[in-house]
Amino acid sequence: MSNKIRLGIVGYGNLGKGAIQAIKQSPDMELVAVFTRRAPESLKLEDANVKAEHISNASDYQGKIDVMLLCGGSATDLPEQTPQIASMFNTVDSFDTHAKIPEFYQSVNEAAKNTTAIISVGWDPGLFSINRVMADAILPNGENYTFWGKGLSQGHSDAIRRVEGVKNGVQYTIPSEDAMEKVRSGSNPELTTAEKHRRVCYVVAEEGADKTAIENEIKTMPNYFADYETEVNFISEEELNRDHSKAPHGGFVIRGGETSEGTKQIYEFSLKLDSNPEFTSAVLVAYARAAYRLSQEKQFGAKTVFDVAPSYISPKSPEELRKDYL
Amino acid sequence: MSNKIRLGIVGYGNLGKGAIQAIKQSPDMELVAVFTRRAPESLKLEDANVKAEHISNASDYQGKIDVMLLCGGSATDLPEQTPQIASMFNTVDSFDTHAKIPEFYQSVNEAAKNTTAIISVGWDPGLFSINRVMADAILPNGENYTFWGKGLSQGHSDAIRRVEGVKNGVQYTIPSEDAMEKVRSGSNPELTTAEKHRRVCYVVAEEGADKTAIENEIKTMPNYFADYETEVNFISEEELNRDHSKAPHGGFVIRGGETSEGTKQIYEFSLKLDSNPEFTSAVLVAYARAAYRLSQEKQFGAKTVFDVAPSYISPKSPEELRKDYL
Repeated sequence: MSNKIRLGIVGYGNLGKGAIQAIKQSPDMELVAVFTRRAPESLKLEDANVKAEHISNASDYQGKIDVMLLCGGSATDLPEQTPQIASMFNTVDSFDTHAKIPEFYQSVNEAAKNTTAIISVGWDPGLFSINRVMADAILPNGENYTFWGKGLSQGHSDAIRRVEGVKNGVQYTIPSEDAMEKVRSGSNPELTTAEKHRRVCYVVAEEGADKTAIENEIKTMPNYFADYETEVNFISEEELNRDHSKAPHGGFVIRGGETSEGTKQIYEFSLKLDSNPEFTSAVLVAYARAAYRLSQEKQFGAKTVFDVAPSYISPKSPEELRKDYL
Repeated sequence: MSNKIRLGIVGYGNLGKGAIQAIKQSPDMELVAVFTRRAPESLKLEDANVKAEHISNASDYQGKIDVMLLCGGSATDLPEQTPQIASMFNTVDSFDTHAKIPEFYQSVNEAAKNTTAIISVGWDPGLFSINRVMADAILPNGENYTFWGKGLSQGHSDAIRRVEGVKNGVQYTIPSEDAMEKVRSGSNPELTTAEKHRRVCYVVAEEGADKTAIENEIKTMPNYFADYETEVNFISEEELNRDHSKAPHGGFVIRGGETSEGTKQIYEFSLKLDSNPEFTSAVLVAYARAAYRLSQEKQFGAKTVFDVAPSYISPKSPEELRKDYL
């Protein structure tokens, strides 16, 4: 009999696929099954020991799976799936609709009567949130700043592709170096989102299209680009496919604070990610360890990353951590 | 009656003074007394409500102080003081002799039968340790790097001042930009401590001293400088007093990892501190909140930062944290 933590994955999109990779790197865990709304036989799982199952069969796995990784989307999947699955299993999810978190927490907390459900896990919300809270607690007299990027923005890339004469294109959100330097100097400036970021577009134009008109239309597009410093680069379709097919992301949480008059202290956390979904999945898998351990301690109900001590996500023993990491 | 967390400070050096500043910034806390081995009337405490007491009177304060901040040194003070005080009070200390932490933990854990004692709090050990553990848990296939500085090193400054012909001087440890860039690229290079840092010295020479000989002696000094890229700058005594009288420090914890073949993810945490002791004290005070709350939950014994969930150090309610920080 195995002593590994037995995991299930619900949803076989980018996050679910990333979770499979992350579990492979975790010797204390094993993947039991992947649940999908599609026909289960359509999933191409490499590992023959992992079952593909229809989501309606999830309840059959009670007692066979310790933690379910919920890898669906925040818009419609998770508000329904998390409470439903959390009534049967310990769960971890990446619910990221910031404004609806309190309401989501309530509904999951009511469902997780005898299970532990860690919600909104990932990097933002997730690691960034932890750093905002800790920096604020340590430096009460200060200001938090979050910068996103360099990252591919799906919404802005879609907006570019709707412009007439554009065949294809992507958009990167990039933190403004100027704004970051101001924040790192400890001057705690007032900055709008537009002042904190610039937008860089790589556009493939249709043959014979008017590039000046395209550039102008992008740069003046309200909400998406008009308020931002925007750069438009025209490239070939090959260049687009070669250089811009990954989903990099990342960002910075910086707090500038003063511990006494004029004594500045700068706290900074950052991520530079080749793959946003793979990293998010890696965070989910580490927090699955915490969900399992908290449930063993009968700490049931909905939790967030704020409720989880660092040792709970580590595979190392407390003795090892004190000896080698402190 | 006040609902504030009532604190005591043991030791009135730089850390103890920093703790007074940090408590002033924390509306949910109040300082009751400062304990010292010196004559208590020699302490110049600004706040008339704060008592100065000889350390031998600490036991009189049981029931009047919730958490003691132990602000003594790691070499001789804390190994004796923490177990002694932790047998009577909840405590937080900054014990930082890495090699002796397991043994220190044991002795504090035996003393803290009905109290909560959080040991080795600060930034390294402390915040840096948390980030090493979390980065390792999330990116198991990777490598941790710690860089220190820019920071004033007391030991190296003392070594400079022992050189013949040197009137005064300070030394800064500075992370090598080259090494940091290699790490941030995700190439996970092998780096010695000497390759990761360079040393910059500001030296005031005695009148008529041989500066070339001084520079040579510093640069070839075994252990301290010989293995490092070392820069020696001669300055006047006024410049030294004007520009080099603070105790700045900081550093970087960086982990480069791969979530799948060739997909690089870079996790980075850094601090840039005008005052090392004031920041360390600010961390101690935030963790005093955690010591108090853990003791209320009867989670007694020695703890480290690995055992403390982020919400425990924050003055905000769980609802506020979920709404505003997640």
